Amino acid sequence: MKKKWLFTPGPTPIPPEALLAMAQPIDYHRSEDTVALIKDVLEKLKHVFQTENDVLFLTSSGTGAMEGAVANLLSREDKVIVVRSGKFGERWGEICTAFGVEIIPIDVKWGNAVDPEAVETLLDEHRDVKAVYATLCETSTGVLHDIEALARLTRVRPTLLVVDAVSGLGADDLQMDNWGVDVVVSCAQKGLMTPPGLAVVALNGRAWDAVSHSDLPKYYFDFRKAYETGLEGSVPYTPAVTLLTALQCALTRICEEGIRSTIARHSRLAEATRSAVKALGFTLFAVSPANTVTSIQLPEEIDGKAFLKLMLDKYGITYAGGQSQLSGKIVRIAHLGWIDESDVIVAISAFERGLIEIGCDIPLGAGVTAAQEVFRAVRVG
Amino acid sequence: MKKKWLFTPGPTPIPPEALLAMAQPIDYHRSEDTVALIKDVLEKLKHVFQTENDVLFLTSSGTGAMEGAVANLLSREDKVIVVRSGKFGERWGEICTAFGVEIIPIDVKWGNAVDPEAVETLLDEHRDVKAVYATLCETSTGVLHDIEALARLTRVRPTLLVVDAVSGLGADDLQMDNWGVDVVVSCAQKGLMTPPGLAVVALNGRAWDAVSHSDLPKYYFDFRKAYETGLEGSVPYTPAVTLLTALQCALTRICEEGIRSTIARHSRLAEATRSAVKALGFTLFAVSPANTVTSIQLPEEIDGKAFLKLMLDKYGITYAGGQSQLSGKIVRIAHLGWIDESDVIVAISAFERGLIEIGCDIPLGAGVTAAQEVFRAVRVG
Repeated sequence: MKKKWLFTPGPTPIPPEALLAMAQPIDYHRSEDTVALIKDVLEKLKHVFQTENDVLFLTSSGTGAMEGAVANLLSREDKVIVVRSGKFGERWGEICTAFGVEIIPIDVKWGNAVDPEAVETLLDEHRDVKAVYATLCETSTGVLHDIEALARLTRVRPTLLVVDAVSGLGADDLQMDNWGVDVVVSCAQKGLMTPPGLAVVALNGRAWDAVSHSDLPKYYFDFRKAYETGLEGSVPYTPAVTLLTALQCALTRICEEGIRSTIARHSRLAEATRSAVKALGFTLFAVSPANTVTSIQLPEEIDGKAFLKLMLDKYGITYAGGQSQLSGKIVRIAHLGWIDESDVIVAISAFERGLIEIGCDIPLGAGVTAAQEVFRAVRVG
Repeated sequence: MKKKWLFTPGPTPIPPEALLAMAQPIDYHRSEDTVALIKDVLEKLKHVFQTENDVLFLTSSGTGAMEGAVANLLSREDKVIVVRSGKFGERWGEICTAFGVEIIPIDVKWGNAVDPEAVETLLDEHRDVKAVYATLCETSTGVLHDIEALARLTRVRPTLLVVDAVSGLGADDLQMDNWGVDVVVSCAQKGLMTPPGLAVVALNGRAWDAVSHSDLPKYYFDFRKAYETGLEGSVPYTPAVTLLTALQCALTRICEEGIRSTIARHSRLAEATRSAVKALGFTLFAVSPANTVTSIQLPEEIDGKAFLKLMLDKYGITYAGGQSQLSGKIVRIAHLGWIDESDVIVAISAFERGLIEIGCDIPLGAGVTAAQEVFRAVRVG
């Protein structure tokens, strides 16, 4: 008998009442109940986005919402700055290029966060830049970007700040209204504790103004259609009703906990994980680590892929490995969504046993102890 | 105590084992189990599509796959013929227009099917037409189009035939390979008995050749990426894992029944419904009715919307009403997916009682009797 433990930065574990909601007979997407469901979900999302702006949703992965945030905001002749510090920053660039938009990339070494001053310099050099495309938590490296600092630059300029908060929303702080972020995109299967298949987007007034001038082709991801129908609890196309019922359950949990407390919980779990990793003698890969996922640099003698396979086969534990150029070189332990302190202890203790099994000389128990210390200190504090 | 009965042409009822599969803890989308799941789903879909071509899937509604079938096949200067005989034929035209493709529409009176000769005339007039966009079952009217006849025209020309089989797949016959249909798009929540959120597409060699020449912008709906990763049981972006597990359950049922038998069942259910409607003195709205849904013309004195509301409030029955110009004027009773003879009896008997309640002079029991006669004749035959 072996349990399955999921510590990946999406999909994240689903709360039991959300799982059971999906086992109910499906409802018609134009029923009164579904209208009420959609309105409730969109209202609760505003709390998570920390915004008074209306939120819209799409039936797609987060990447669909990212495409929408290009196709709906930009026009053919536009130029944009793209922060590339990992796989998902690169994705912003790929989407812009696919849609014929000129990009000015800022390439940041993987593991580092972008320097806001570098963005400021580029903004001053290219005053006709329409938008800056950035990432809250770069999931591929575990780096948290200083979105508040970027917003300080864009909100005083006629330049939009568009943030991929796919893995960060609900775990890392993102105060859309207070900071003046123009567009935030995210999706269900990360901090929102819902199975994949739904994306969520919020735009402020400046962003909607850009939407009204955009001439890039869009149909399925047309934000205006999604927004206008959403206000009525409706949709332009059949939505993933089942996933919406799960999302409603998950959002109810977040709203009851309160978004500030949800973020504080993630902060605590992340701190404990980092503390454990360091106590075991490992190095964090991310210079400014996010609350969603902890990336651990592996010593060269460890084959990261073999380690992950061992952890799954022997302990039922799924961590994430490195992507693209980091394949086999880092391990990523997510502490995201429906995760509590005890889950983190499980993740760390198994990490210790697995490392010893592959011949690593680490002090057994030191990681768990360090994590416990963090949890105790928080309780005492 | 009142049950909910869903007779809408999507979402359709979900088999119980598919509902329960979704209540299981979610799996990582890069796990070995998910790889096997995706491969199995794509293999089983070939049986449903009646094709040897590989099938790909997308995390979106069916409209996403329709957009993909425009953005992946066409280029900026292309001209296409669009068959418009209802809301979904119009959607083909809207998508093409959104992507800057010139359309030559064939407008067919709602309720009628396109005359293949009219398409042939247009094809002869416009020899540079890149593709014909058509619909198997036009869900908004319940009309079945003669796709086999259209394929006879396109397969001998350098013109692709792209078919929206969103509601028709698995209910109305569509022999992709035998007939020579180039592209078929569909989705989960219709004949495939799965909650909405997944779309499926098959392309033949001619279509893939067009894909390699297409220059329209696409990213999320890039067919080649979905196809190439799908062959490995993988995906370019996090897929709706939960919905895939449900789809696997539903496809297992269809494969066990056999697609020819599945279609024959739908044909029997549709015939019984039509026979019942006629026995009650009503007129079918569709000249060539599909197996998926029966559209019933309402006499002017009946307020269709009020009737649907009564049926839901009093009997727990959801039929679909008319869309766009047909709003309030027709009732659509679907017999699609996870539906058997007894369900059809429920749909018809409630229809009778509801009609009498709103003051219609119909022969109570005549519809149910007519349906029973059809079922008995099939059994005896």
